[in-house]
Amino acid sequence: MAHTTAMLLEVFIIFAAAQVGGALARGIRLPDVVGQIIAGCVVGPSLLGWITPSEPLEVLSEIGVVLLLFAVGLETRLEDVKRVGGSAFAVGVIGVVVPFVAGTFWAHSLEPNWPRSLFVAAAFVATSAGITAAVLKEMGVLRRTESRVILGAAVIDDILAMLLLGVVVAIQAGGSLRIGRLLVVAGEAIGFVLVVGWLGTLMMRRGSKFLDRARNPMSPLLVVLALCLGLAWLATRFGLAAIIGAFLAGMIASETRQHVQLEEQMQPLLTLLTPFFFVLTGAKVDLAKLASREALWLLLIATLLALVTKLIGGWLGALKLGPRSALIVGVGMIPRGEVGIVVAALGLSAGVFGDLLYAVIIAMSLLTSIIAPPLLAVLLKAGTGDKGPGTGHEARVADS
Amino acid sequence: MAHTTAMLLEVFIIFAAAQVGGALARGIRLPDVVGQIIAGCVVGPSLLGWITPSEPLEVLSEIGVVLLLFAVGLETRLEDVKRVGGSAFAVGVIGVVVPFVAGTFWAHSLEPNWPRSLFVAAAFVATSAGITAAVLKEMGVLRRTESRVILGAAVIDDILAMLLLGVVVAIQAGGSLRIGRLLVVAGEAIGFVLVVGWLGTLMMRRGSKFLDRARNPMSPLLVVLALCLGLAWLATRFGLAAIIGAFLAGMIASETRQHVQLEEQMQPLLTLLTPFFFVLTGAKVDLAKLASREALWLLLIATLLALVTKLIGGWLGALKLGPRSALIVGVGMIPRGEVGIVVAALGLSAGVFGDLLYAVIIAMSLLTSIIAPPLLAVLLKAGTGDKGPGTGHEARVADS
Repeated sequence: MAHTTAMLLEVFIIFAAAQVGGALARGIRLPDVVGQIIAGCVVGPSLLGWITPSEPLEVLSEIGVVLLLFAVGLETRLEDVKRVGGSAFAVGVIGVVVPFVAGTFWAHSLEPNWPRSLFVAAAFVATSAGITAAVLKEMGVLRRTESRVILGAAVIDDILAMLLLGVVVAIQAGGSLRIGRLLVVAGEAIGFVLVVGWLGTLMMRRGSKFLDRARNPMSPLLVVLALCLGLAWLATRFGLAAIIGAFLAGMIASETRQHVQLEEQMQPLLTLLTPFFFVLTGAKVDLAKLASREALWLLLIATLLALVTKLIGGWLGALKLGPRSALIVGVGMIPRGEVGIVVAALGLSAGVFGDLLYAVIIAMSLLTSIIAPPLLAVLLKAGTGDKGPGTGHEARVADS
Repeated sequence: MAHTTAMLLEVFIIFAAAQVGGALARGIRLPDVVGQIIAGCVVGPSLLGWITPSEPLEVLSEIGVVLLLFAVGLETRLEDVKRVGGSAFAVGVIGVVVPFVAGTFWAHSLEPNWPRSLFVAAAFVATSAGITAAVLKEMGVLRRTESRVILGAAVIDDILAMLLLGVVVAIQAGGSLRIGRLLVVAGEAIGFVLVVGWLGTLMMRRGSKFLDRARNPMSPLLVVLALCLGLAWLATRFGLAAIIGAFLAGMIASETRQHVQLEEQMQPLLTLLTPFFFVLTGAKVDLAKLASREALWLLLIATLLALVTKLIGGWLGALKLGPRSALIVGVGMIPRGEVGIVVAALGLSAGVFGDLLYAVIIAMSLLTSIIAPPLLAVLLKAGTGDKGPGTGHEARVADS
């Protein structure tokens, strides 16, 4: 109880810091999420030390990003994603292959050890959809073709990254690569996405009239929130990120007749809970570990490598949309966020990396999350000639 | 990360169990909260063991009840509470004195030891406003005189309970009772309530036009949520419960021009987060410890004592509203909830109680929370001749 009470202060600080950071970022025409991540860096252990990442905050952060991806799914129709399926698949695959190959050679140049190099390279692979999704939602462009390609590719990307991680962990542990087992894992994950996405959408299209009968205006929200939390958890059982399940749940819920009302009801939830995700992301940057010249050089090279390889991968995959759209897709795939952090944590506990490489990989993951949003915002604004942030209701997840 | 992912399952179970329990309770015309508490008891460690109270869940539960009391405050004007100030004060004071005196003599009859008896009696004192507030909100009767008296009395009650706890802890520890120090503590708590309630209301009445200028429909919500979290924490710094600060924040926010919009925006937040409070309350009942005849007898007597003394105290205090209203107020003050649990935990760690008395006091606190809502619902329905649950938007926190 005493501890719970103390947590209230951190909850308040995170919420308030996110608002201040978001407002400052908006003042200099940057996406709110950038301000929120930097605010987290400032109030986190590296600088002010007002908050410390802890399990309760992690859970709030996880719920925040799950709800965010659910809301993004709510604005995404399965039909729309299907229409860009080819490009999304190409972006997902090429966007995994290019950073993985480049990352392997870079790591090998640091220390010639193939199993270790493959492990390091795995940290360069997986795009974290949360950051990009927030920017797209904030700018009100979720219905643009590029956005659909990015979101579709994020699903493919997550499946591939999971498989790749399985492979490199097995190689590192010296175990035999059981191809049969890998195929089963891959099949299960793909099956999960297809069955949930397709069957769920179909069932919701038929069943959503039952939701009309509810007298309580919150009843449809109740049902889809349960779906969101349930599928988020289920996705993790299939080796996927929780946000993939939440995104699928959102796509299913977008088939209900109540989807406009649901989008409105999600706004207060995003307002309260997404700041925990972005502020905590920032709070995890350990500036002290990066205070040497060697670390900064490593970080600079790793970040450039992460940035350029994903940009090229995404760009190549989306090239048939035209060079400008391909560039937007490439930039949208840049943020690594929490997936790189998970790989780094695995590597540290398995004794594959030392402290320095661990800190560098985490900082790289976070830097890509800070660098991509402004680039994306500039590209999206320039594309439409719109100089201000998007208007209208759905355009402002930023404040949330 | 792995642990955070596992927590998603518990989050889903809590949310789903609350909906099922709430719907079942509604089916037999009981308030939703009763169903949610019992659902917590079923999925908790005592029976199914699907969830285990943990720090992340405690924080979610705390945020849930803080938001609930904020929403209740949002429907409560300071003017309205002032108008019933005399009755609220009487209910608060008499409702503390009667259970404390009776509890002391009961504990003394178990084991003649005055310091220990006073400590046990402190567990009988403090009303937990969360349960009653949820029922009142669910039934849409927050604007009734009885509701205002109960909410006002809950504030007085919390101040007195805090002071009393300070006294009994000092006596138990064998320290000298420093009256001067107690007066300072009391003065600070009363000052906090008056200054925040009065000054905050005044400032918001003047300042709320600034909120009109915001382009973003979520901006007023942002401001008042920050206020809510900030005051919830600040209240704990003055020795009060976090929910008292949240309730005051809600009263302040009720002075904004946007208060109707804010009430609507709070609904999805309550829908997602209040179930954590009620389900966790139920999950804390440790049925195994109560499996002896001795324990059950003790529990029966303690619960009756807690019930009857608070009922009498509240009834006496509110008598000038008429006997029926006084009865409603008395029943509304019955739930002890988390405050009794805090006293029990303090007593256990200070070596004042054994395991048995600890389990009995916790079970008593929770039983009062389960017994009071149906009684209250019956009394409120009978009073208005309304057989169904309240209608309209604000009437259904239950589903939340």
